Amino acid sequence: MKRTLNAESVKNIGKEIKVCGWVDSRRDHGGIVFLDLRDRTGLLQIVSSAKLSESIRNEYVLEVLGTVQERPEKMKNPNLETGSVELKASVIKILSQAHSLPFDLADLDLSLPTLLDNRPLVLRNEKIRAILKIEEGIVSAFRKSMESLDFTGFESPVIVPHNAEGGAEVFKIDYYGRNAYMAQSPQLYKQIMVTAFERVFTVNRVFRAEPSVTTRHLSEYVSLDAELGFIDSWEEIMDVCEKMFLDIFNELKKNCSKELKLLGAVLPEVRKIPRIKMREAQEIIFERTKRDNRKEPDLEPEDEKEICLWAKEKYGSEMVFITHYPVKKRPFYAQPDDKDPGYTLSFDLLFKGLEIVTGGQRINEYEKLLKNIKKWGNKPEQFSFYLQAFKYGMPPEGGFAVGLERVVKQVLGLSNVREASPFPRDMERIDERLSLGKKKAVRKKTSKKKK
Amino acid sequence: MKRTLNAESVKNIGKEIKVCGWVDSRRDHGGIVFLDLRDRTGLLQIVSSAKLSESIRNEYVLEVLGTVQERPEKMKNPNLETGSVELKASVIKILSQAHSLPFDLADLDLSLPTLLDNRPLVLRNEKIRAILKIEEGIVSAFRKSMESLDFTGFESPVIVPHNAEGGAEVFKIDYYGRNAYMAQSPQLYKQIMVTAFERVFTVNRVFRAEPSVTTRHLSEYVSLDAELGFIDSWEEIMDVCEKMFLDIFNELKKNCSKELKLLGAVLPEVRKIPRIKMREAQEIIFERTKRDNRKEPDLEPEDEKEICLWAKEKYGSEMVFITHYPVKKRPFYAQPDDKDPGYTLSFDLLFKGLEIVTGGQRINEYEKLLKNIKKWGNKPEQFSFYLQAFKYGMPPEGGFAVGLERVVKQVLGLSNVREASPFPRDMERIDERLSLGKKKAVRKKTSKKKK
Repeated sequence: MKRTLNAESVKNIGKEIKVCGWVDSRRDHGGIVFLDLRDRTGLLQIVSSAKLSESIRNEYVLEVLGTVQERPEKMKNPNLETGSVELKASVIKILSQAHSLPFDLADLDLSLPTLLDNRPLVLRNEKIRAILKIEEGIVSAFRKSMESLDFTGFESPVIVPHNAEGGAEVFKIDYYGRNAYMAQSPQLYKQIMVTAFERVFTVNRVFRAEPSVTTRHLSEYVSLDAELGFIDSWEEIMDVCEKMFLDIFNELKKNCSKELKLLGAVLPEVRKIPRIKMREAQEIIFERTKRDNRKEPDLEPEDEKEICLWAKEKYGSEMVFITHYPVKKRPFYAQPDDKDPGYTLSFDLLFKGLEIVTGGQRINEYEKLLKNIKKWGNKPEQFSFYLQAFKYGMPPEGGFAVGLERVVKQVLGLSNVREASPFPRDMERIDERLSLGKKKAVRKKTSKKKK
Repeated sequence: MKRTLNAESVKNIGKEIKVCGWVDSRRDHGGIVFLDLRDRTGLLQIVSSAKLSESIRNEYVLEVLGTVQERPEKMKNPNLETGSVELKASVIKILSQAHSLPFDLADLDLSLPTLLDNRPLVLRNEKIRAILKIEEGIVSAFRKSMESLDFTGFESPVIVPHNAEGGAEVFKIDYYGRNAYMAQSPQLYKQIMVTAFERVFTVNRVFRAEPSVTTRHLSEYVSLDAELGFIDSWEEIMDVCEKMFLDIFNELKKNCSKELKLLGAVLPEVRKIPRIKMREAQEIIFERTKRDNRKEPDLEPEDEKEICLWAKEKYGSEMVFITHYPVKKRPFYAQPDDKDPGYTLSFDLLFKGLEIVTGGQRINEYEKLLKNIKKWGNKPEQFSFYLQAFKYGMPPEGGFAVGLERVVKQVLGLSNVREASPFPRDMERIDERLSLGKKKAVRKKTSKKKK
């Protein structure tokens, strides 16, 4: 007999069907056992004799043959999609047994480290699954939005030949006995691809050897990138970003309403996102809090939270573009604003207090770019491949990068970005905890020094 | 004035428009200059006075204001989509200049290493762009097919804690002073995800420290992965793979017909793909060629070509599934065939002589898997995270992995898999050639030995 999915059971009253899934819970009532069977479409109540399900415990994987029957009116469960029916089991086949669970999967009131230690098991929880469904919904919606705006996708490489953007926050690879690095972003490649397709997007894992453990940083995260040529103005880049978020939230509304409801999340209304210069933001923050960060070259996390409160109060917007970061705080390729010397045509997008996007117009003039590469202390010969794109004609262009896990975190109000990644990596964890290895490494160093 | 795309010019006869793009070619005819302007939609002929385009050379980026006029009947170019019109330029603005080109972009009769050295420039060639459009078309079609079959996507990590599948072909990372590795496949993670969503897919960059340079191998490539639980039979995995290719080729027909035509590619008809055991294939190859590889545990590249010729002759199929590889040639997680001891429920899919997919049913029984991990010489403690998925109930499951660049290579009849990647990496190249670095590394080793 072909398998019927749980959600389809309600259409099969009186019929014999076969269902498959995991035992989500077991309740014994005298000689009768109720099993909630979980499959990818939801739960279905199985009614069986005590004998038939004698050895069955939570998370056992079953194949159940039985007859769908309508539940008596007072026994209907309005909280369950299949709550109007139940399956009276005639045959139960155990497809896979489960060891005793270390904790109750329905009630995950545990510390985050414990949850992450047990990630493969925890992924079975319906709320965790909902988070990951929404994450994937955003990836799909991003791709769809980009394609509708005539962007062409491409696959950007992870292995790169140089530590191009400088800094210590890059992972080194042993590449056939040479050094290579893991890309911190697809930046240089997406700019090159503008010369092929004008408008490009790419979804990649990117890597930051982030030396601290915060609720906002991962060592490996998903970056949603867009880059577009022939812009009339750098504001066009923000227009595309705005349109993209509108599309993403509309798609989520359409495809993930069940998951959003389960997690109690309300999607933001994206209309026109306010755009203000960083210096204006600093003035506003000073006025509101008397905290004077007006001479800082960047916004601190607490500033980002404050300016989001302001945007919400003044414009009813959960999001705000902060523009014109100082030249010195941006990479060599950031286009300076000729009308505002010392500042760049760049932006961050803040969402409920957290930066989720960074972008801007790029320098598209070959000589100017070459000069900046030198000025930033980089070796031009390490950029000769990238520079080809500019040497042979590059239109005015720019783009942005979205941190996927941060968007998920903010949409759902999660307290830690790790919850938004199926398998988060940080300084202390790659699936399992790394503390032992770390101690070892430190010990080694010390002993060397002593010698 | 808002920009008009080249392809839209034919709808604007008699009107003044603004177009933007790169100069694909320049032809001087006395006082008149013809420029073919290239944008993402195609070429448009610009007619200008010699004075107006005096300094303009190939690959200059222009913004051109002018009037669209119908070409005289005998001047129409049926090979060009906009060949019935031309733009009489009134204003030409240079957005970006280009240095002299090292070669003619229209005629890339150069060695592959030279083409790859100049990849950012070469990407502007229409045939190269067509290859990459088709590659992206396959990624999109894969995702669409998977979603239609109720698979849920997820993002699989690149950084992994152990060299899990063993072997030297793995890249090592310096992870905060510890060792970590770059994933050779999302295998363990997609199996874990089956317990969350039953049917999952994932698109990832994967890494092989392939120590040789061949036309079929890359150090970094794109893997299209699927994994599904609750299979009735391992043949169901091949059914899904077959359906997926049918979907992909149908989508390509719909969305990339222009590119396929340009490259002279004919898509294969996917109906029922023949399925034969490896040993049967070896017998057939022996009968056809008298080459006796019947005792080999795997097919050699020349065997793969021969059996594809056979499948084409006998079944009219460009593809053939080879099944039942020996236990010893497959990873620890491959499900053995109880009815055929020593062989696994595994398959490769060959397409025009090349392996493009590998897959099979996995061991879903915890104790059996644990035993195999030990038998394969692995440390079970390195698999404790993965094993959680099995310890707490895993249905019968399996899946497959598609090598994206190989599919592109075979669909288009390219001679080297490098041509199917925008930025291919191998032992000798990460964008630029690495030969110098290699020599250095070798020299270092030698001098150490001498000491």
